[in-house]
Amino acid sequence: MEVICSPRRIQTLALKWKARGRRIAFVPTMGFLHEGHLSLLRAARAAADVVVVSIFVNPAQFGPKEDFNKYPRDLEGDLVLCRKEKVDVVFAPARKDIYPPGFSTYVEENDLSRDLCGAARLGHFRGVATVVAKLFNLVQPDLAFFGAKDFQQSRVVIRMVRDLNFPVKIEVMPTVREKDGLALSSRNRSLKGEARRQARCLYRSLVLARKLVGEGKRLAGEIKTAMERVIKDQPLARIDYIEIFDTETLRPQRRVNRRSVAALAVFVDKTRLIDNLSIWPGRLSLKPSPEGGGPSRPLRGGC
Amino acid sequence: MEVICSPRRIQTLALKWKARGRRIAFVPTMGFLHEGHLSLLRAARAAADVVVVSIFVNPAQFGPKEDFNKYPRDLEGDLVLCRKEKVDVVFAPARKDIYPPGFSTYVEENDLSRDLCGAARLGHFRGVATVVAKLFNLVQPDLAFFGAKDFQQSRVVIRMVRDLNFPVKIEVMPTVREKDGLALSSRNRSLKGEARRQARCLYRSLVLARKLVGEGKRLAGEIKTAMERVIKDQPLARIDYIEIFDTETLRPQRRVNRRSVAALAVFVDKTRLIDNLSIWPGRLSLKPSPEGGGPSRPLRGGC
Repeated sequence: MEVICSPRRIQTLALKWKARGRRIAFVPTMGFLHEGHLSLLRAARAAADVVVVSIFVNPAQFGPKEDFNKYPRDLEGDLVLCRKEKVDVVFAPARKDIYPPGFSTYVEENDLSRDLCGAARLGHFRGVATVVAKLFNLVQPDLAFFGAKDFQQSRVVIRMVRDLNFPVKIEVMPTVREKDGLALSSRNRSLKGEARRQARCLYRSLVLARKLVGEGKRLAGEIKTAMERVIKDQPLARIDYIEIFDTETLRPQRRVNRRSVAALAVFVDKTRLIDNLSIWPGRLSLKPSPEGGGPSRPLRGGC
Repeated sequence: MEVICSPRRIQTLALKWKARGRRIAFVPTMGFLHEGHLSLLRAARAAADVVVVSIFVNPAQFGPKEDFNKYPRDLEGDLVLCRKEKVDVVFAPARKDIYPPGFSTYVEENDLSRDLCGAARLGHFRGVATVVAKLFNLVQPDLAFFGAKDFQQSRVVIRMVRDLNFPVKIEVMPTVREKDGLALSSRNRSLKGEARRQARCLYRSLVLARKLVGEGKRLAGEIKTAMERVIKDQPLARIDYIEIFDTETLRPQRRVNRRSVAALAVFVDKTRLIDNLSIWPGRLSLKPSPEGGGPSRPLRGGC
């Protein structure tokens, strides 16, 4: 396994692979890898000749008052895990090499980015879209893997890939969870004791939403109120948003249907957690995205 | 020579070329080709295995009150010229294939785009950067050729390529002129009779600027006033802007130096014309851009 810091070097290598017809799979991460990431690595390993993982805590996707500095980092631990998963190249650039002096070009998706986490975290998806576009140009992947926990992010990336014609197939992999349902996230690290216990409320509220739909409830407002109650029962939890929306357009729904996704963002103590679930009961059969570059298999909304 | 309308088809072809290690040169145009374009085609032909020319009048770079509908078009004539220059593929997509329903992702350069034509034509460079990013992803070029007449455009594209890490080398080719100095442009077509005669004033004012610098003048304000007088002498001409700026940063200068470029935009009758010239006298020796992907040879500011 090779560890590369220089953008120029990874791109030269990637272009050589392309010129030899090698298939490149790419997993962009912010490091501090957990089982969720590892599931992406394994899917990438199974799908291509060359697997590249990037580890870069992207300042452009953090707001000025967010946790960029406190975001957990453990490059050495990450490298051990990557080696174990037979990753070929880890790309771990420095901030100054990704955003050199005078950097002034951004990629902005203006529709799917607006609401949900986009409303709560101004500029967040501009930062995501920009760094993903840069990484795609550097790594030249045929396939790129994203986790369904960041549902809106996956939708924004799929739209960007379609709109800007990146020749990259986006694969969105199911959320990996702790035994009590908590979605794996690098941010879980800062949940201690009582906060960790109360963090279960996110998944519990999603499961309740699905159960209510299973019982015949269809009014999104009613379901959201029930979800809200689950969160508000936890003294350390503070709701950022709770929403039920269409899986493709991300537009809020008044009545749920088989395309409905419930998603929420909740501060537990000082840690902002997100989660989502397709709430139509039974085996999920969402149609694959009609957008080019979309997921090749049904998007499972985090279940 | 093959004419391709489908984005999917050109990209599939381009990726095949890449996988075989072929070198692709690309000339993006809005069609209605003139000798300026042909000079780009010839440079492209000399530089690569495969030459792709795109012909697409890009609505995203026209303002709502601009001349998108009146912009001249002649696909058949263009194809004859491309065939003569041994172009391999002409990519001539439909508007709906470049901007499909729900299109929502834009590339925006926020520094070099602000002033000059960027101030006069709001959203223009966002449209340019977006379509160039799309075309680069579709055509997968190793090299792309732009004309120096659109000086600011070339600078914005070079910055975008650096910032977003496109693996494309940008070549900026000298402006081609009529015998009386008028820079070739598809828009010249709408200059009739007296308007055509008065359109010479743009180049005349640039040549005067350079002459004044040759005589020892250094104050940009003084030189701009002299340029202004040349334009105002022509009753059909109306100044949009006249500026003297640094070739790299595009920041206005108070004193000229060997990095100075004079540029202007002038409406002659109803046609908006632009032109520019490096005004340091003698053989130009501007340093190549320090930015990655910059021009491989001195940028000649349109002389």
